Amino acid sequence: MDRFSVTITPRFYETDALGHINNAAIAAWFEVARIRFLESLGENRPETASDWVLANIHIDFLLETFYGSPVEALITGVEVGNSSLTVSCDMMQNGRVTVRGRAVLVHRDPLAKRSTPVPEDLRRQVAAYRA
Amino acid sequence: MDRFSVTITPRFYETDALGHINNAAIAAWFEVARIRFLESLGENRPETASDWVLANIHIDFLLETFYGSPVEALITGVEVGNSSLTVSCDMMQNGRVTVRGRAVLVHRDPLAKRSTPVPEDLRRQVAAYRA
Amino acid sequence: MDRFSVTITPRFYETDALGHINNAAIAAWFEVARIRFLESLGENRPETASDWVLANIHIDFLLETFYGSPVEALITGVEVGNSSLTVSCDMMQNGRVTVRGRAVLVHRDPLAKRSTPVPEDLRRQVAAYRA
Amino acid sequence: MDRFSVTITPRFYETDALGHINNAAIAAWFEVARIRFLESLGENRPETASDWVLANIHIDFLLETFYGSPVEALITGVEVGNSSLTVSCDMMQNGRVTVRGRAVLVHRDPLAKRSTPVPEDLRRQVAAYRA
Repeated sequence: MDRFSVTITPRFYETDALGHINNAAIAAWFEVARIRFLESLGENRPETASDWVLANIHIDFLLETFYGSPVEALITGVEVGNSSLTVSCDMMQNGRVTVRGRAVLVHRDPLAKRSTPVPEDLRRQVAAYRA
Repeated sequence: MDRFSVTITPRFYETDALGHINNAAIAAWFEVARIRFLESLGENRPETASDWVLANIHIDFLLETFYGSPVEALITGVEVGNSSLTVSCDMMQNGRVTVRGRAVLVHRDPLAKRSTPVPEDLRRQVAAYRA
Repeated sequence: MDRFSVTITPRFYETDALGHINNAAIAAWFEVARIRFLESLGENRPETASDWVLANIHIDFLLETFYGSPVEALITGVEVGNSSLTVSCDMMQNGRVTVRGRAVLVHRDPLAKRSTPVPEDLRRQVAAYRA
Repeated sequence: MDRFSVTITPRFYETDALGHINNAAIAAWFEVARIRFLESLGENRPETASDWVLANIHIDFLLETFYGSPVEALITGVEVGNSSLTVSCDMMQNGRVTVRGRAVLVHRDPLAKRSTPVPEDLRRQVAAYRA
């Protein structure tokens, strides 16, 4: 079982007037985690940037996230469909899961402009992250 | 049936290197639509800012959204639970729905720090927006 | 004397934990004002997007800007250099100037990748905005 | 001579349709560098968050900054006035200075709501960073 995580240091401008990190900043962090995860697999290099299209995101805000302590965004599972990846991610701060996200990314042929099967070797690589 | 929408003019910095509006900017627009909708109902005034807590969001990215044309974020339905509202929102650009969002907001007693029933008059008001 | 302004409705996520609009959001609004101003002059169309390069910005934060009231970003003057424009902008909320910005934009030949003189007709157009 | 720097990994959503990091993201990074610098000096703790007010920023965009390589934001000098600090910061990517920023921060008595002299011990601390 492989493990991939990104440490995010909350930035002051990501707080809002309620005193915590704003939900839109957390949606942005989720992109950071997803993209770095794909990059760790050799995907999403500049020359293939349009290979993965975001179909949807779902984010559960379980607890407030605050400025002042690091957040670990951990990829907790990847499900592989025919031409898509469903990437799950937990964000933890001070030992508690504060955010739980799930995103569906569709593999796309940038020339043909349509979805295309997830390559076999990527399929094997992400198997190690299956929940 | 009441209708509530917000017009958003995409900003250049909301684009990304793929040439379209970035998904994190769209999550942020969804907050704009939700909050202005609550404000239109007399909720979420500064003095009661902590009355509604975002429990989760789900966003389907149906088509790319681009810089250069206005986006209409339309509240397409509100479901009322015991102490929550589920707010649905479509974003349209150039006559096509590009984004479909759904958010669950929990009504919260800021002093007792726990969820509390949706007030009767708000329940009546939002009934008009039910899908 | 021509007048160009953009009305910006502050967004909740643009506040920070100090309860006001964060300075980075204001830098972003300044881009909105500059780009819409250039667009109003027929510049900065998608096909010529790389014609203007931002050389520098200076922003004075005179008073706090808050969520809840519209902000008018007014172009208060444009100085034309050989190959640059210096655009000044005041942001007003509730009748008071809260932000004063100044940006230098360099006109650039995207093919030759070097600065190039401001075209004569643009020079005439912006003369009307000189402070 | 002390040295303080923050390493920033550019995020994909911070790019814009011109393919580089947007200027508003860079203004936001500058806040990250300033605040972490103040925190490193024992200032700007949550309980004293309103002690430093941003009076102005000036940012020179010397070269484009890109996604894909880390940026080092280095505090290059601090000038101390009676009740203000002028903090200079260079951002470097791939061995070249791409951004040069300067911010004036005013020390403020949050109760009296007016500017107040920079404390002597802070004055001594920042002397080490003078350009």
